Amino acid sequence: MAELKGAFRPEERVLKIDDAGDPCLLPYRDIRERDLVGRHQRFIAEGKVVLNVLLSSARFEPESILVLENRLNGLEPQLRLCPEELPVYCVSQAIMDEIAGFHVHRGILAIGRRKATPSASELLSGLPERALVAVLCGISNHDNVGSIFRNAAAFEADCILMDETSCDPLYRKAIRVSVGAALKVPYARQGSIDEIVAALAQEGFEMLALSPSGALSIYDAPPAPRLALLFGTEGEGLPKPLMEKLRTARIPMSQDFDSLNVATASGIALSRFSRFA
Amino acid sequence: MAELKGAFRPEERVLKIDDAGDPCLLPYRDIRERDLVGRHQRFIAEGKVVLNVLLSSARFEPESILVLENRLNGLEPQLRLCPEELPVYCVSQAIMDEIAGFHVHRGILAIGRRKATPSASELLSGLPERALVAVLCGISNHDNVGSIFRNAAAFEADCILMDETSCDPLYRKAIRVSVGAALKVPYARQGSIDEIVAALAQEGFEMLALSPSGALSIYDAPPAPRLALLFGTEGEGLPKPLMEKLRTARIPMSQDFDSLNVATASGIALSRFSRFA
Repeated sequence: MAELKGAFRPEERVLKIDDAGDPCLLPYRDIRERDLVGRHQRFIAEGKVVLNVLLSSARFEPESILVLENRLNGLEPQLRLCPEELPVYCVSQAIMDEIAGFHVHRGILAIGRRKATPSASELLSGLPERALVAVLCGISNHDNVGSIFRNAAAFEADCILMDETSCDPLYRKAIRVSVGAALKVPYARQGSIDEIVAALAQEGFEMLALSPSGALSIYDAPPAPRLALLFGTEGEGLPKPLMEKLRTARIPMSQDFDSLNVATASGIALSRFSRFA
Repeated sequence: MAELKGAFRPEERVLKIDDAGDPCLLPYRDIRERDLVGRHQRFIAEGKVVLNVLLSSARFEPESILVLENRLNGLEPQLRLCPEELPVYCVSQAIMDEIAGFHVHRGILAIGRRKATPSASELLSGLPERALVAVLCGISNHDNVGSIFRNAAAFEADCILMDETSCDPLYRKAIRVSVGAALKVPYARQGSIDEIVAALAQEGFEMLALSPSGALSIYDAPPAPRLALLFGTEGEGLPKPLMEKLRTARIPMSQDFDSLNVATASGIALSRFSRFA
């Protein structure tokens, strides 16, 4: 009997592994600890939503996928998308938990790789005439960075420029909190905030430094065709010398409780200046 | 020699306890586990910022305070504010960690009590002619509830009304994430969302149900003297029958990635409709 053409059996696409010591699984070992270490632009993607983003990205590529055996059937659309040469491993829950070092309840992990690490100037030179950019200075909390990427994706910021003291958006938790946006919004993370500001000026960007003590309300500040919004840490804020050089803006709020989370602040300001508002 | 009048010695104000089994410390035992259980409107306050809010609140009162011995001197302003009859216990780090069940690095804990549990109608009847209210339906994540309180305080919302399926803002983590705002913004948490909506209508509130599919952009929706903003869960959103009855509004954003965190959404909408904008 001729086999039906186009029939796809997830279990035939994967390599079943029964030994936690198998070298194929090495990249997945103890990922909780290791995700605090730079790994040549490699990262862990968790869950179906993030895997979808990874598989459709031009700037990242999967190196391998690790799936829980009882999740195979739910992953058929993703597995169909995988290039033939991409290894997809399949293990039991016990083996996956043992390798990862924690209980992986989403059942899907992937090792991804960032193909290129563009500079701020390189990213900016590719942007259209109208563009919105978020700039992060010293944002070192993974939750906040993940949330800011999520907000940037929601409001279609064109890119995010991070200074070298901000944390890597490819950390496991940052990717998870971003709901995959860390793989979606183009970013550069290198150099000092002064270098980033110089690159923005070079490309004709208006800049607004966000601060509780900012001179203008964001609701009064005029939009600009090319606008960059700068965010500093919740405690210290942006460096004083920088604030003195730039136009400053505040999210107008209570004097009694002038403390917004920086990710929330990014959501408010990006919403206000997005093309959708 | 006469003692200097007004001299205040923190170590004389506190009761030093050396035995982790001392019954005075019972309320502090295993607080990580227990904060998932209702405790007659009692709660754990952590850290100096939250303690400050608790000590100055009219709607809450401290029942006791537990301080790490090496933090005593830094707490002088707070200890001066404590009513004489309020017990302040002092312990070593080892004893504090043993009692609490985790490493308490902030060094300050307090047991607080909510004095009254007003209904939505009671809260609303006390509001001024111009008022902004946040309404939460089914928000059961402590981080989100804590962040929403923080945003409500920043934008001086007059109160928060939560349906009975939303989680308690007095959970330890919610208070901490709120940076004390859970003790600052008046709230009611009881009844169904329909009962809350009825109470709002009774008091002449305009209502806007926030939803990605909302009819109006929040930037086009006219402000109203008395306005209530309704927020549902990220997944399900507000109940359909409710959405059909109310005016709906959306935070305008990308069609490709229409997912904002509900706390971020509350920040954007509260900012837009706050008296400060």
